[in-house]
Amino acid sequence: MTVELDRYKAIDEEDIKYFINLLGEKRVFSGDDISEDLSHDELGGISKFPEVVVEVLNTEEVSRIVAYAYENNIPVVPRGAGTGLVGASVPVHGGIMINMCRMNKILELDEENLTLTVEPGVLLMDIGDFVKEYDLFYPPDPGEKSATIAGNINTNAGGMRAVKYGVTRDYVKGLELVLPTGEIVEVGGKVVKNSSGYNIKDLICGSEGTLAIVTKAILKLIPLPKESVSILAPFNNLSEAIGAVPNIVKSKTNPTSIEFMERDVILAAEEFLGKKFPDNTADAYLLLTFDGNSKEEVEEHYTSIANILLKEGALDILIADTDERKEAIWSARGAFLEAIKASTTEMDECDVCVPISKVAEFVNYTYKLQQEFDIRIKNFGHAGDGNLHVYILRDDKAEEEWNHKLSEVFRCMYDKSKELKGQVSGEHGIGYAKKQYLSGQLGEVSLDLLRRIKLAFDPKNILNPGKVCQ
Amino acid sequence: MTVELDRYKAIDEEDIKYFINLLGEKRVFSGDDISEDLSHDELGGISKFPEVVVEVLNTEEVSRIVAYAYENNIPVVPRGAGTGLVGASVPVHGGIMINMCRMNKILELDEENLTLTVEPGVLLMDIGDFVKEYDLFYPPDPGEKSATIAGNINTNAGGMRAVKYGVTRDYVKGLELVLPTGEIVEVGGKVVKNSSGYNIKDLICGSEGTLAIVTKAILKLIPLPKESVSILAPFNNLSEAIGAVPNIVKSKTNPTSIEFMERDVILAAEEFLGKKFPDNTADAYLLLTFDGNSKEEVEEHYTSIANILLKEGALDILIADTDERKEAIWSARGAFLEAIKASTTEMDECDVCVPISKVAEFVNYTYKLQQEFDIRIKNFGHAGDGNLHVYILRDDKAEEEWNHKLSEVFRCMYDKSKELKGQVSGEHGIGYAKKQYLSGQLGEVSLDLLRRIKLAFDPKNILNPGKVCQ
Repeated sequence: MTVELDRYKAIDEEDIKYFINLLGEKRVFSGDDISEDLSHDELGGISKFPEVVVEVLNTEEVSRIVAYAYENNIPVVPRGAGTGLVGASVPVHGGIMINMCRMNKILELDEENLTLTVEPGVLLMDIGDFVKEYDLFYPPDPGEKSATIAGNINTNAGGMRAVKYGVTRDYVKGLELVLPTGEIVEVGGKVVKNSSGYNIKDLICGSEGTLAIVTKAILKLIPLPKESVSILAPFNNLSEAIGAVPNIVKSKTNPTSIEFMERDVILAAEEFLGKKFPDNTADAYLLLTFDGNSKEEVEEHYTSIANILLKEGALDILIADTDERKEAIWSARGAFLEAIKASTTEMDECDVCVPISKVAEFVNYTYKLQQEFDIRIKNFGHAGDGNLHVYILRDDKAEEEWNHKLSEVFRCMYDKSKELKGQVSGEHGIGYAKKQYLSGQLGEVSLDLLRRIKLAFDPKNILNPGKVCQ
Repeated sequence: MTVELDRYKAIDEEDIKYFINLLGEKRVFSGDDISEDLSHDELGGISKFPEVVVEVLNTEEVSRIVAYAYENNIPVVPRGAGTGLVGASVPVHGGIMINMCRMNKILELDEENLTLTVEPGVLLMDIGDFVKEYDLFYPPDPGEKSATIAGNINTNAGGMRAVKYGVTRDYVKGLELVLPTGEIVEVGGKVVKNSSGYNIKDLICGSEGTLAIVTKAILKLIPLPKESVSILAPFNNLSEAIGAVPNIVKSKTNPTSIEFMERDVILAAEEFLGKKFPDNTADAYLLLTFDGNSKEEVEEHYTSIANILLKEGALDILIADTDERKEAIWSARGAFLEAIKASTTEMDECDVCVPISKVAEFVNYTYKLQQEFDIRIKNFGHAGDGNLHVYILRDDKAEEEWNHKLSEVFRCMYDKSKELKGQVSGEHGIGYAKKQYLSGQLGEVSLDLLRRIKLAFDPKNILNPGKVCQ
């Protein structure tokens, strides 16, 4: 199956007039008025300006713009905070960018059904802060707190707490969607179980703005755990650290998160933040958190974990049970991406997810690649769920060498991931940048199925074209 | 969008020869050799014989049969244990029935990644028994333990433990599928996070054998909770009992299940089983379970729940912490469906799921219908997740009156569910019997989207046609 691209209508004066008529002048931007920020995402590897940017305030506006785009064969791309890493929100075929950021109201907290209904542009950090006041908790915890909730939904963002609590998809109960025709539908709702027709909700989660535009989301909340503790365990090397993880997962201690980190990433974070990490003497660390409703429950769990860790070769157990100590650890963890970015000229990332029993093998393989290609590679990530964040650094390499090596290193890594029965992306998505690797992983039959699903939603292929499977 | 049906090729001698050649004579059944059991499911409201039944032993056989059906325009329906309640496995257009029951091997237990890989015909009860030996737990717990795992996957079966642990979909990590073309694909895997292309796995869960045939499943396991306790709380009436549920869900006690039941259903179960329930003096009951890894943890939770229940009007708190007392309660709960069935001549069921804050309102509405239509209606179900099982009993009504009243009562119930923002089915699915109610709930735009998704998988519409959205 081939999809015809580049047969879209270019935006003209008529179109701009239509949008101004609909939204007023202040919410329509074209030409030089379009901010450079909107031409790329956080990692910036790919860039392209939209022909027009429209700022929307409600579902009806989204619907009318998309219906217009559908009728006139104009590509349309929804845009949130632009914190993506794979170019999913970059309008590679130009056209209309719908800036969703001003649809950022929290609409309803339902304390009986434990749901929060939000507009798509609400920021992740605002959700956590808001529900905390009601002694409630929205567990998904991706590193980038200034992402919008619809961005999180569209990448099915995971984050650190996935080990215990699952990923964004697990906390999306219902969605209001604008389909590529402009029609508005609702899927799911405030129900716990649902076996009523095909599961559109979970198909939209992770679809990177290519199947429908999320205009409202009903999120699941849970009671806020009262207590939490973090444990830092230094190890002689990363293999030993990661090797301990399957035994932790099998134990009945139910950790909230299990992160791994290496000394040089910690040193980079210390330098970047100008703050000391509690320990930087060991080569590798596991960082675990536990939460629960009583000090005793949490203590019981981390005590038994401490014993497991020591048996598995941990050199020490550092317990962070005060806000100050937790802050010292987690602010460093939160700064890893920025710290690595600041240490080089340019970088690209690989976000594979492998079975947790294969994490050590994959990380060791990246060491081998580092030597083989003479290129710096930095790892950190979620040992507890097998999702690695691997950064390949350009440093002072010339353009041609960088492009060549990056492409080779990526090829090796994704091949290795496939060999280990891993997946191309754990939480950052495919977008534009990872298409070839998804294609290599899936093969023609599956890829073709994805393309047919795309066309089932979007027969004219106007919604965020050129992404994921196209 | 309309779908052409009944333009299928009828099975002839050539086809039978092909199947015998492929499978041998002993695994191909036609004409009078086809068991009557295979012409209907558990509830039996709709029946139709397949033209041929083939018993398969492996994926390759499934693939070849489906490819043959695709090539020759023959409808094909996969069949497990036939414990469904909505006719999803009934071959309403005849054709080939693939009996999957002999593909029933447990293929691999992976103790490092906590997964169990199984063939589709493995029974739910066998999974629980198998993993228990390894101190592991497969949480989904639908009432019908003799269902196959692929049947559970295809209805996204929920069960009693959904309150704490979620539904079948949450425990399916990966699937091997035979597409309607006969091609074999794998989706998901032993990974915890996945954001690599559209989420086919979760679309298949709950698709009732209409999009692909499940030939292998990788299930998620968790460590087995060591302790569990059940609590039975009698109330003056069902409204008070169910009214307590939102406060329980909001408390930090994390119950595994919250069931509601009424005296006359309990009496029916007592009579059916010839065994006494621990108490039958109150009009209504909540039955809760708690599990955890220490007696103290479980005790702490049920003590604080007992206080909440008493404050909400519970007349007493009966604690079942011995195997004997638990058995007395749960064997009755497990017999409700059979006991109600035995108390009447014929019945049909409604399995709506409403927000938990609306359960009492819905149940009260069924009382009103009972009077209005002079027909017996029995309720029980999952108060903790809003999934009701409502049974409408024929008793001695004449055919015409029964059909008329049943249809009117259903219409009222599904309208009410829609008004309460509920869903047509919580866990039994749509199949054939509930199609008109799904259609009424979704409306044309959404229904059309489902139909296009169906055709994206199955362009010739040969796989289990006439179900869900068709």
